[in-house]
Amino acid sequence: MRKWAVLNSAVVIENWPYHRTRQDRVRLHNGDAITYYVQEHPDWVNAVVLTPRRQIVLVRQYRHAVGDFVLEVPGGMVEPGEEPAAAIVREVSEETGYVSPLAPICLGSFWPNPAVQTNRVVSFLLLDAAPGSPLHPDRTEDLERVEMTWDRYGELMAQGELPHLFSAVTYYRAREYLSRRRGGERP
Amino acid sequence: MRKWAVLNSAVVIENWPYHRTRQDRVRLHNGDAITYYVQEHPDWVNAVVLTPRRQIVLVRQYRHAVGDFVLEVPGGMVEPGEEPAAAIVREVSEETGYVSPLAPICLGSFWPNPAVQTNRVVSFLLLDAAPGSPLHPDRTEDLERVEMTWDRYGELMAQGELPHLFSAVTYYRAREYLSRRRGGERP
Repeated sequence: MRKWAVLNSAVVIENWPYHRTRQDRVRLHNGDAITYYVQEHPDWVNAVVLTPRRQIVLVRQYRHAVGDFVLEVPGGMVEPGEEPAAAIVREVSEETGYVSPLAPICLGSFWPNPAVQTNRVVSFLLLDAAPGSPLHPDRTEDLERVEMTWDRYGELMAQGELPHLFSAVTYYRAREYLSRRRGGERP
Repeated sequence: MRKWAVLNSAVVIENWPYHRTRQDRVRLHNGDAITYYVQEHPDWVNAVVLTPRRQIVLVRQYRHAVGDFVLEVPGGMVEPGEEPAAAIVREVSEETGYVSPLAPICLGSFWPNPAVQTNRVVSFLLLDAAPGSPLHPDRTEDLERVEMTWDRYGELMAQGELPHLFSAVTYYRAREYLSRRRGGERP
């Protein structure tokens, strides 16, 4: 196995800071040359946000590619020069108005789609969160905050009623972290 | 909250069956008109594949957008007119040479990125898999099959050493399914 050789490369859609599309001409392991599209994105962050009474704080918003309203954990883009932990504190505050007195707990860092997408999504857990800041959604955002018990969220997840992939990974990582902390769940 | 109104729409990159990029001019809830890019993809499938001795069957391959070799569960695209369950049987066979005597168990269906991507990824569990078919990788694929125990895979996942997001969701769903089946794990 070896890496592809890049013969040439050009940006064909410039839509930064959201994304840019790069068109690479590459030579494969078998000698074939093909055209391959890469989506460049800044890193993303998201978080399971829990209140002291074990309510999870979610957002529902319109997601244009699927043409529907999607319930998901809060999150967003890491800004230039920003640490992921600072980015998630900012995003949770902007999208939900909630703040936590504790440092965000990092649950892991993932490639959403390493074949065609350059970035990572970093997942966090925010505990003991409470209302504490005014909402500042981005101008393209139109959000509804939703709260439910952690157990109810787990039931909906198990029933397949929460199809947002990033939220699912963050939920399972948070559950694993919380179980380990109370010395429960076996792997 | 309301859906965006599409003022006009054009395909700006045609790379089907892998993807196409659509450029939509849309009007937001606040009256602003913006340009928004949508990635259209066919649905994807992936699977945790386990042998009778509880080994997981994985593939390692070069992923160009991150420029590195990535260990992941087998998977791929659903072909036109194909059922997701048939697609995963085909992909597992092509990529690993393994076949299962049992029907694939559906673990759920997720939107990888509903803001900008139209498709779903459907996750499966294949049990009692064994070598049984010759490899037929796509011509752009250069794969290495990797096996390890299910417990070892769980350790690497918990340690954050398996950053492939789709694989992580499918792992956690499979673990939940297997735990429920043996009447173990609490939510």
